[in-house]
Amino acid sequence: MSSRIKIVLLSVILWLSTIPAHAQTQGAIPGVPPDLIEDIVIGSRVLADFGVVDGFGHVSARDPANASHFLMSRSLAPALVSADDIMEFDQDGNPVDARGRSVFLERFIHAEIYKARPDVMAVVHTHSPGVIPFSVSKTQLRAVFHNGAFLAGGVQVWDIGKQFGTTDMLVRSNEIGKSLAQALGDKPVILMRGHGDVTVGPSVKVAVFRAYYTDVDARLQAQAIGLGSDVTYLTPEEGAKADTVNFVVLDRIWNLWKQRVQPK
Amino acid sequence: MSSRIKIVLLSVILWLSTIPAHAQTQGAIPGVPPDLIEDIVIGSRVLADFGVVDGFGHVSARDPANASHFLMSRSLAPALVSADDIMEFDQDGNPVDARGRSVFLERFIHAEIYKARPDVMAVVHTHSPGVIPFSVSKTQLRAVFHNGAFLAGGVQVWDIGKQFGTTDMLVRSNEIGKSLAQALGDKPVILMRGHGDVTVGPSVKVAVFRAYYTDVDARLQAQAIGLGSDVTYLTPEEGAKADTVNFVVLDRIWNLWKQRVQPK
Amino acid sequence: MSSRIKIVLLSVILWLSTIPAHAQTQGAIPGVPPDLIEDIVIGSRVLADFGVVDGFGHVSARDPANASHFLMSRSLAPALVSADDIMEFDQDGNPVDARGRSVFLERFIHAEIYKARPDVMAVVHTHSPGVIPFSVSKTQLRAVFHNGAFLAGGVQVWDIGKQFGTTDMLVRSNEIGKSLAQALGDKPVILMRGHGDVTVGPSVKVAVFRAYYTDVDARLQAQAIGLGSDVTYLTPEEGAKADTVNFVVLDRIWNLWKQRVQPK
Amino acid sequence: MSSRIKIVLLSVILWLSTIPAHAQTQGAIPGVPPDLIEDIVIGSRVLADFGVVDGFGHVSARDPANASHFLMSRSLAPALVSADDIMEFDQDGNPVDARGRSVFLERFIHAEIYKARPDVMAVVHTHSPGVIPFSVSKTQLRAVFHNGAFLAGGVQVWDIGKQFGTTDMLVRSNEIGKSLAQALGDKPVILMRGHGDVTVGPSVKVAVFRAYYTDVDARLQAQAIGLGSDVTYLTPEEGAKADTVNFVVLDRIWNLWKQRVQPK
Repeated sequence: MSSRIKIVLLSVILWLSTIPAHAQTQGAIPGVPPDLIEDIVIGSRVLADFGVVDGFGHVSARDPANASHFLMSRSLAPALVSADDIMEFDQDGNPVDARGRSVFLERFIHAEIYKARPDVMAVVHTHSPGVIPFSVSKTQLRAVFHNGAFLAGGVQVWDIGKQFGTTDMLVRSNEIGKSLAQALGDKPVILMRGHGDVTVGPSVKVAVFRAYYTDVDARLQAQAIGLGSDVTYLTPEEGAKADTVNFVVLDRIWNLWKQRVQPK
Repeated sequence: MSSRIKIVLLSVILWLSTIPAHAQTQGAIPGVPPDLIEDIVIGSRVLADFGVVDGFGHVSARDPANASHFLMSRSLAPALVSADDIMEFDQDGNPVDARGRSVFLERFIHAEIYKARPDVMAVVHTHSPGVIPFSVSKTQLRAVFHNGAFLAGGVQVWDIGKQFGTTDMLVRSNEIGKSLAQALGDKPVILMRGHGDVTVGPSVKVAVFRAYYTDVDARLQAQAIGLGSDVTYLTPEEGAKADTVNFVVLDRIWNLWKQRVQPK
Repeated sequence: MSSRIKIVLLSVILWLSTIPAHAQTQGAIPGVPPDLIEDIVIGSRVLADFGVVDGFGHVSARDPANASHFLMSRSLAPALVSADDIMEFDQDGNPVDARGRSVFLERFIHAEIYKARPDVMAVVHTHSPGVIPFSVSKTQLRAVFHNGAFLAGGVQVWDIGKQFGTTDMLVRSNEIGKSLAQALGDKPVILMRGHGDVTVGPSVKVAVFRAYYTDVDARLQAQAIGLGSDVTYLTPEEGAKADTVNFVVLDRIWNLWKQRVQPK
Repeated sequence: MSSRIKIVLLSVILWLSTIPAHAQTQGAIPGVPPDLIEDIVIGSRVLADFGVVDGFGHVSARDPANASHFLMSRSLAPALVSADDIMEFDQDGNPVDARGRSVFLERFIHAEIYKARPDVMAVVHTHSPGVIPFSVSKTQLRAVFHNGAFLAGGVQVWDIGKQFGTTDMLVRSNEIGKSLAQALGDKPVILMRGHGDVTVGPSVKVAVFRAYYTDVDARLQAQAIGLGSDVTYLTPEEGAKADTVNFVVLDRIWNLWKQRVQPK
């Protein structure tokens, strides 16, 4: 290929890259505002950027145009997710219009939580390295500081083996997803034994914030335990009050994250 | 190329580099030298760069034109702070000329410390991840090495619950700020239970240096404890002597930090 | 811009991106497909990128054109390996056509494992910092989470001193390599006391995946132990089931890694 | 300043930056080969890049043109050291031709070690964060793996307070430097209580390699201890044998480091 053609193509590519990510997909899924798609993209990338997810994990949002459906990327590493990768799934986790795209094995986590929790507008699943140790330990994850306040109401560990015996550890069916959703109850976070965690929230931003600060809080708690003295945790009442503030300051950190991972 | 030409060119380059990035904001706050604004900007960004702050935390300086006032960014993640974001606050933490900009909820930390401590010219508040474990543990933070010498005089933990019962953990009023300032006493550092810390100093550079090395020292102490044997800390006398040197070598590390985070 | 033009342009871009970086070396080693060479390059670089290897360590593949031979880089830090550096070695670890290039001292690790394990198509040797502590501790490395499932069958530590007395710790002969291969048995991973580990697999991607997740799992286990309570590990049966899934999702993380370290 | 002048100046600067670092200083210190200066620059920068030094620490080499003298940077953060910053010091640590440049307070570490140890050709002083915990703990630093083999002969901690009582912890005189050099004895490494360490070697590359791997080994040992079981260290005999190999493979990792930090 000649250099001239290459330069022309590169110019076109550069020009394409100046069109904002959501402009390109506007209208791709009927009734879905581009901002929501963008939040899923930013959330996926920022969790990858902080190592809360590596090649695995996913961020979803309830479909505003059809409350029993949800939106999630095709099967792809979170760091690589773009607006074009977001697909629509029905209440049982079936893709509405797959067009040959492969989907996440564990989409049932999302489907069953949206079914069980009408208040939940977003779900994040990670293999958070700070959290996994707590998923296999008798030591309970607790709220160490105010940004982890949403943990102060208590965090359960769901052990897939309790109900399903020997498995491949994955939430690969609606039945398993339902068991996980039941264990989550009305809480914002649930740990999965030998696997990771799920965080939920009234928006993508909140669910991502919780995935991030569950990881941070877990690391802080592990360090505090390592000091060898008694540890003082936030009381459930302090947690309830402090978590209200998290919602107020959320945009401050979200704007930072957006700049970090915004597709240029 | 001869050495003489090189020296001339280097001089020009050096001179160019002294034209501050914030030249366009010169005079934005009457009587405030651009260098002081720049120190706040560099300090905010370098603490973000090292993870001592994430989306939250703030750096302030006493107003040289009005010693009862202080200078601090509008509500913004520290990594994003620029000269244009610095605002003036009065002795009670009220913005002098808000012009619609939102302000930090916890500006009372700064207001009340400037009131109580005439010697303090700068205040830093962080959610330092090395330090938080010590804020919730009975194990006291101590000076492990000479760069943490300012900790050798003893570090207290201020527990908001002692005086204010169940709160959202934040210093959201002058009354709470005053309680924190009293607990700080004449020390350079105070920890806040389940929250973070505050460092103060006779200049922005010193307060930022202390925020950074409080985090470093805390991590070193945690590791030393983890080795399972007795730990030898700096004596208060060694700390007093060693801290004098920190002031002498401060510019060496500040110049490094400046290059790391200087807005290009 | 219409979708049709976009698709055409994207196709061109994608086609361009399929012209491999190693096109110029095609045919360098007779009968070796460029894709396999690329996997060795990507694997070497990604392990360096994640700190699983530093200046040392190596990735090899069985030669598809001559099953008793194998392919490995000349002596070079893994981060710097390119397609041109890959050489052919015979069943005893001798370079087939050295052309003055220096070779790894520990090539006998690879030679003897390919000899002993016809099922093994790739071998990775690292000084994995998460794993070395387990290589010198009586605490056994175990499977903490599903991505480390391949560890659930049990991991042995091979101590060079048992058979060879005082050595320089290196696998610098066929005899020592044979001892290591025997200790590996039919397992996917073996630790080397005071040295590192070896992972094997039916493809370069799998062996690299195992090197990476052995390091991750080891760190998670160390953190879980640090919490001070009992730890629940994957059962061998869960491990067997979960490892099957690792093979299914492998390409998802490999594609991410490829983008991270692809020579531009 | 007009844009046009700025562009001209920038072009000159860019052109200057294409002249290799050592070409510019060739002959700056009579009899000193540019390669040796480059090794000091690379070593300083790579230790900064890995966090073994932050704003402080220094790398020196014995002057090949005058064996009682040594070469070291002016007072500057290691990450910023360039060939032009290297100065000549006499046997007592006095700068031979200061030309107004400020010098390191702790140059006596280097002066006294070169005096006491004719075999030593390079000295590195760091505040290595992996090592400092061992400098304040009764737990002795030991050789965990073969790259840390040079530690197997035993590592002492020098406590400045033993001989000098209450100090600012710094090696700020020939007398203190002499005490440190005596404690080092014929070993390659000495820890300094509440401060850091010193590594020495027959070349800059070896001393830097030892500074880096002392930090790595210390972290590995801390992690191994954290697993809670007995730890097996390299025997002194294994250490002696394994360290010989470190010299053989040194260039492999040095070439990697050079690429990482080479001034472009």
